[in-house]
Amino acid sequence: MERTCYYSSSSNPYLTPKEEPKMSSDEKNLIEILEEGHKVDIVKYINYVSAPQAGAIATFSGTTRDMFEGKAVLELRYEAYVPMATRTLTSICTAARSNWDIHKIAVAHRLGPVPVGETSVFIAVSSVHRGDGLDACRFLIDELKATVPIWKKEVYTNGEVWKENSEFLEKRDGLVKREHKRSCCGSKVRVQEDENSS
Amino acid sequence: MERTCYYSSSSNPYLTPKEEPKMSSDEKNLIEILEEGHKVDIVKYINYVSAPQAGAIATFSGTTRDMFEGKAVLELRYEAYVPMATRTLTSICTAARSNWDIHKIAVAHRLGPVPVGETSVFIAVSSVHRGDGLDACRFLIDELKATVPIWKKEVYTNGEVWKENSEFLEKRDGLVKREHKRSCCGSKVRVQEDENSS
Repeated sequence: MERTCYYSSSSNPYLTPKEEPKMSSDEKNLIEILEEGHKVDIVKYINYVSAPQAGAIATFSGTTRDMFEGKAVLELRYEAYVPMATRTLTSICTAARSNWDIHKIAVAHRLGPVPVGETSVFIAVSSVHRGDGLDACRFLIDELKATVPIWKKEVYTNGEVWKENSEFLEKRDGLVKREHKRSCCGSKVRVQEDENSS
Repeated sequence: MERTCYYSSSSNPYLTPKEEPKMSSDEKNLIEILEEGHKVDIVKYINYVSAPQAGAIATFSGTTRDMFEGKAVLELRYEAYVPMATRTLTSICTAARSNWDIHKIAVAHRLGPVPVGETSVFIAVSSVHRGDGLDACRFLIDELKATVPIWKKEVYTNGEVWKENSEFLEKRDGLVKREHKRSCCGSKVRVQEDENSS
């Protein structure tokens, strides 16, 4: 059955397609954690944040890339602790609104396997002036990576690697000075090599 | 006849729809100044920058908003000195590539009337890591506003206002300290009130 399934930040986390996503009356946020097999429809989220009173829309897409440290990646797989992820995303949106003048925010994260070239996370922010939207978009993706309980597994041609996001670890453990160079790519925490891999 | 017309930064500035846009062999840039009546197809530009080797896509859309200083805006109208605009945009892309590790860049600007809610300018940048794409996207829109010879007229219910971008004036005149607060909205330079306006 073809239907869009998502979890939102509302008290009832599972919504059927005909239900409108819940949002606070003051905060026009659309937060969706998409179940396995459901692609991120970026046009939907851009349309959601579009408004006559907004002069700017900033977006960010995180996509699966084909190589990591010289190894061919087949796909990424995402798992989340959904109730906490949606609550944390709602808090991040509130924090963004306290810092910048924002009209609407859309945040979507796909779970399950995400093939090379496809979007795993998408953020769209509309604002009257461009500085607010651009700043808030960057803040939202940085905070999402640092605080939202979503984990990824990189699936290579010869094995799989669970990766915890290095920024998440830094934030959780309060580790300011880590020995490795900070990047957006996370750090390996567990390796499962295939039996037949070299 | 429905066709997409655009000017590019190639030596032949006018291209018919069946021709591929020109670009440098090293720099994967798509720069289009769209003729009057042609909407900005943002999905086309996002698809252009998408690639298996890119893990991030940052975009910015500038859209016509319905109000400016309490006055109802009907539409914006853009004019450009096209050969210089395309050359300047190409230079900005080169500058971005010298500062950040970027895969592909798309920049589009629509000319003529742009109704409320529609996109006048769109930028998309793909990169391996998100920091590069986000930084470059912001740089590109800031530099476009500051250096590219494109002017806009705000059409209100009771008149029209040509606006030169304040950032453009600052850059051109080398004025670092201006008395007015800098914003993304430009400053009025000429007013044509309708005969029947109050």
